[in-house]
Amino acid sequence: MAEAPVVRRGRGRRPAAEVRAGVLSAAGRILMSDGLGAVTFERVAAEAGSSKMTLYKWWPSPGALAAEAYFARSEQVLDFPDTGDLRADLTAQVSAFVGLLVQGGAGRPVAELIGAAQTDPVLAAAWSQHYTKPRRELARVRLRTAQEQGQLRADVDLDVFIDLLWGACYKRLLVPDNEFDASYAATLVDHALFGVVPRA
Amino acid sequence: MAEAPVVRRGRGRRPAAEVRAGVLSAAGRILMSDGLGAVTFERVAAEAGSSKMTLYKWWPSPGALAAEAYFARSEQVLDFPDTGDLRADLTAQVSAFVGLLVQGGAGRPVAELIGAAQTDPVLAAAWSQHYTKPRRELARVRLRTAQEQGQLRADVDLDVFIDLLWGACYKRLLVPDNEFDASYAATLVDHALFGVVPRA
Repeated sequence: MAEAPVVRRGRGRRPAAEVRAGVLSAAGRILMSDGLGAVTFERVAAEAGSSKMTLYKWWPSPGALAAEAYFARSEQVLDFPDTGDLRADLTAQVSAFVGLLVQGGAGRPVAELIGAAQTDPVLAAAWSQHYTKPRRELARVRLRTAQEQGQLRADVDLDVFIDLLWGACYKRLLVPDNEFDASYAATLVDHALFGVVPRA
Repeated sequence: MAEAPVVRRGRGRRPAAEVRAGVLSAAGRILMSDGLGAVTFERVAAEAGSSKMTLYKWWPSPGALAAEAYFARSEQVLDFPDTGDLRADLTAQVSAFVGLLVQGGAGRPVAELIGAAQTDPVLAAAWSQHYTKPRRELARVRLRTAQEQGQLRADVDLDVFIDLLWGACYKRLLVPDNEFDASYAATLVDHALFGVVPRA
């Protein structure tokens, strides 16, 4: 993703939304290149050309800022397609997610964010609010459509199905006993959709 | 699990295996009651009645000791049943795992261990070696038997199926957007075994 350079307009004040976008962009860039530990209010303020006070006012902690920055950065890549073909859409979406983690450099920052969230309630709340809840809702919307169209059984618990698909990816990321690449997505989606018992 | 009291035998030296078991038992007890941060060589040595030097010699870090202690502690509970009925066995095993996490007090220490493993390679290696690899192998053995008996299709990737089942549980634990209790296991196992598309 290309980053827009921050333009400082002489002595004029930039609109808050523009400052916010610039801060999130800088925080996301630092997170992806140098990891969660490098996302400090000081460094983000310096790179975004904003004041540290603004960051203290807007975010409860650098971890919370990093969580929101990661969502802003991954939003487009993780958009949920709806071509009408559920299997293709899920495979595309899970492939994009795994690709972002494995080839796209997001594996380390995401692992660090989830890792730190286990002992940092402020970061955990930000990660849930700004990343996992909106992501889960996008998946629910797509799956509900599929369920209404009869592509998923009416008795399927959509949240459990979401856990199955993305939980498997998180497990490979966080407890890496096995290799992991984007080709994983096709097998994962097929096993999850069609099950593993012999076909009747 | 009842803890055997450590018996100090006057001036005699205890066998190494006995000392080791006592240390693991003390470390596991501290981990479960007070969390990963409380597992220090100093406290474990004091509670196990062993020397701190022994602990330094045997474990590369307190985190690595905690990881091994967790495995030793959960080994019996997480034993993999084989009654011949795969669905029942998986439901029993996943229920036991979720029950240990949710009601059994293991949720916090396991989340802390996986969390810390994201930035502590020594702990990550110990967690993989002493916990997730042996656990995965137990699951593989049970699933391979099921596959040989025709209860799982021959084309099923057993590691992906393992990721689906346990990854979903890890996701609920580590990124807790939804409630989570042992009843979750039955739905999870049924969705994973039989899939979610309409039955032919």
